[in-house]
Amino acid sequence: MSDKNDEKKVTPRSQDFAAWYNDVILRAELADYSPVRGCIVFRPDGFAIWEALRDELDRRIKKTGARNAYFPLFIPESFLRKEAQHVEGFAPEVAVVTHGGGKELEEPLIVRPTSETIINYMFAQWIHSHRDLPLMINQWCNVVRWEMRTRLFLRTAEFLWQEGHTAHAAREEAERETLTMLEVYRGFVEDFLAIPLVVGRKSAAERFPGAEETYTIEGLMGDARALQCGTSHFLGQNFARAFDIRFLDETNQMQHPWQTSWGVSTRLLGALIMVHGDDQGLRLPPTVAPTQVVIVPIWRKPAEAEAVLAAARSARDQLEQAAVRVRLDEREGLTPGFKFNDWEMRGVPVRIEIGPRDVASGEAVMARRDRKGPEAKQKAPLAELATRIVALLEEVRASLYRQALEWKTANTRQFDDYEAFRRQMAGEGGGGMADIYWCGNAACEARIREETRATCRAIPLNQSVPAGRCLICGESASERAIFAKAY
Amino acid sequence: MSDKNDEKKVTPRSQDFAAWYNDVILRAELADYSPVRGCIVFRPDGFAIWEALRDELDRRIKKTGARNAYFPLFIPESFLRKEAQHVEGFAPEVAVVTHGGGKELEEPLIVRPTSETIINYMFAQWIHSHRDLPLMINQWCNVVRWEMRTRLFLRTAEFLWQEGHTAHAAREEAERETLTMLEVYRGFVEDFLAIPLVVGRKSAAERFPGAEETYTIEGLMGDARALQCGTSHFLGQNFARAFDIRFLDETNQMQHPWQTSWGVSTRLLGALIMVHGDDQGLRLPPTVAPTQVVIVPIWRKPAEAEAVLAAARSARDQLEQAAVRVRLDEREGLTPGFKFNDWEMRGVPVRIEIGPRDVASGEAVMARRDRKGPEAKQKAPLAELATRIVALLEEVRASLYRQALEWKTANTRQFDDYEAFRRQMAGEGGGGMADIYWCGNAACEARIREETRATCRAIPLNQSVPAGRCLICGESASERAIFAKAY
Repeated sequence: MSDKNDEKKVTPRSQDFAAWYNDVILRAELADYSPVRGCIVFRPDGFAIWEALRDELDRRIKKTGARNAYFPLFIPESFLRKEAQHVEGFAPEVAVVTHGGGKELEEPLIVRPTSETIINYMFAQWIHSHRDLPLMINQWCNVVRWEMRTRLFLRTAEFLWQEGHTAHAAREEAERETLTMLEVYRGFVEDFLAIPLVVGRKSAAERFPGAEETYTIEGLMGDARALQCGTSHFLGQNFARAFDIRFLDETNQMQHPWQTSWGVSTRLLGALIMVHGDDQGLRLPPTVAPTQVVIVPIWRKPAEAEAVLAAARSARDQLEQAAVRVRLDEREGLTPGFKFNDWEMRGVPVRIEIGPRDVASGEAVMARRDRKGPEAKQKAPLAELATRIVALLEEVRASLYRQALEWKTANTRQFDDYEAFRRQMAGEGGGGMADIYWCGNAACEARIREETRATCRAIPLNQSVPAGRCLICGESASERAIFAKAY
Repeated sequence: MSDKNDEKKVTPRSQDFAAWYNDVILRAELADYSPVRGCIVFRPDGFAIWEALRDELDRRIKKTGARNAYFPLFIPESFLRKEAQHVEGFAPEVAVVTHGGGKELEEPLIVRPTSETIINYMFAQWIHSHRDLPLMINQWCNVVRWEMRTRLFLRTAEFLWQEGHTAHAAREEAERETLTMLEVYRGFVEDFLAIPLVVGRKSAAERFPGAEETYTIEGLMGDARALQCGTSHFLGQNFARAFDIRFLDETNQMQHPWQTSWGVSTRLLGALIMVHGDDQGLRLPPTVAPTQVVIVPIWRKPAEAEAVLAAARSARDQLEQAAVRVRLDEREGLTPGFKFNDWEMRGVPVRIEIGPRDVASGEAVMARRDRKGPEAKQKAPLAELATRIVALLEEVRASLYRQALEWKTANTRQFDDYEAFRRQMAGEGGGGMADIYWCGNAACEARIREETRATCRAIPLNQSVPAGRCLICGESASERAIFAKAY
């Protein structure tokens, strides 16, 4: 709200999506660039969204039986090398601590890019018997991956996330856990963040380094590019072998446990912005909005101010009582129009306008951010404001989901013809999601990537499609896959 | 609860306090050593205490108007050097990242030991006008200080904390904020953690590097050593000058803002253990206990099991309804006595015993962890269990505070004679808190440290004591100070 920002205009979304994205984040004061390459600052409104998201997801994760813990930031370099695919995946992008307390370290330490190695080292200390299983741990923390090209929230050298790590006595149990967490993520992202998803497994090429199977939830952004919103990995016994985790089973045999890991990150903030935002700025689901309702008092004559402000304050108190995150904009020297734009930019789901005539008639205007024009506004009796607002906030959430679902549906196309698919991907914007038969062959996948820059986002689960022909090679294909250009 | 732990005995507290401390932490599974030097692992029960503590303190901090944000883990090495005392204080104990993404960095990055420098760099971008003030930011994060000798929770290379950073237009406002946060900490630690405190300002020698004044809350541990539990710093304009933070005041003059910073850390877990624990293990205030109540069903004949378990489950459901964190110990093959010891070790504030006769009489035994012997037990009608338990938990919290206060009072002594003071500090254990006249001279303070290892913990606020004579040099002294050996 500083003077500088008032002068800056936000690039229209339709004109330049990437510029719009950055403008909105800076203008809405969600984040800022930092003096450290690739690292960003989460400003209070951005961090409040993360906190709302984190608290709800944390509640859902704990409900599954996992418990939070905290493991060291640093990982001995040698740990990373213990799992062959894992080191290949992460070694090129790590930050390395070589000096501590004024001395060169004997063994360099890696700043964790993910914590499989250190957590599994500890699991080996804690797991001895089948009675120690399942062991289900979650960690909220910062991780570092030295990215060459960074982008606010989406790709930063340091980011925040949660990473769950579990160990089970039986393979089937670990596989079930992988899918349980996938479903927790799906429910959370679709219901709480109002982002419709494609849910499926990854191709071998897109798997997490060290996993036997990776499952994913994928959203479609406002520029018709896909974004991976969370992943759940079935790790088999790969890390258990690498870290020699063994337990005595019920028949007194030594066994390696079966493991999973799963995570979502501050990328989800990027998804929220890119799925729901419009030319006016952010549109936030009320579930995560730092301010759910802003009240703008309006008057012309000074004599009107007192009654209007009294009504506005009473409305605020009423909403606070109902646990609504409400803010009364009493700033002086700013026009109502300026305030409307300012709060629209910040994505506040509902605005309440109260003027002298409203006070006289005992009403207020509720303006919802998810719609435009006259249909966005409705009157509500001041006496019933809290009930009406609570219901309207729920309506806004559902409506944001519906709009996003319409966009995703409209931008998901089936292709039987490779050239049509290629043209679609080569066109303006992201190209949307292509729903195609794929034989599963890595060569076909590589050809698509090379010729269209689209990647296999997900192979949807539980397909019951007739056998078909691979869009690329024409060989028989038993499944359809979603390909898209992605962040 | 693994088999290995069952064999380990905890060193009696009276015999070897330091060994007892480590034993309890490992045995109660609060934390574990990690393969990374100086870094520990917070296990689920330890982390749950931190979460309870953090959530409550976070609520209290937000109530003062501060908002959470998140700043980069890494700080350019040159930033640390901008404030002369700050670099002197922290340079010797930093961890340095020299390589990222496979290349040597142009400028090494420091892993934050505290975030004054990077946050003030950002403040300089955000603060332009008096309308941007006060700016009140809090951050929960990990920090790294390369400690030579580490100790679980108390002194670890990486630890978790919150650090608040505020900027104000007027000196008095910043001074007030420093004291407001000191009072937030005092209320939180005394009421919520049940730890009685000495509150005061630090001597110049003990100040935070870069602060004009440091205030502290100090607790007295079970071995009669002091522990600093939190600090609040008035930074004056030192960092504002170093980072060129300036604002246009209401009279159109450019000014440097006045600043504060304040923090508490995972050290508080160490304080909880050392203040409340006993030979049987942990004793946790119900406010932070991961399990507040454990129900142990007891029966001899198999025929009794069904009725006892049914009553125990119904008691559990009743307590869950009342939002009590309750656990029913249905483990088989373990005696009630083993279970009693196990949960006492873990510090569970109240145990409920239900046997066949209790079922018959519609009662249960409530055994409180804060007392010993017959007076620790009382009966409660099963029908009123929730009400009785909620009241008892509050009683346990108050009683733990009272016991700790008695200990602190009994171990705080006034000295008029330096030799008596010296003998006290040289004796067994920590020596307690010495309440003495001190002239304020650094030479006297240094002599005490050298000859007794005691340091100035705090100069209590708002003293109204008659003028006296410095215990060390005999010169006139207007204030009393608390000296103690400390962690």
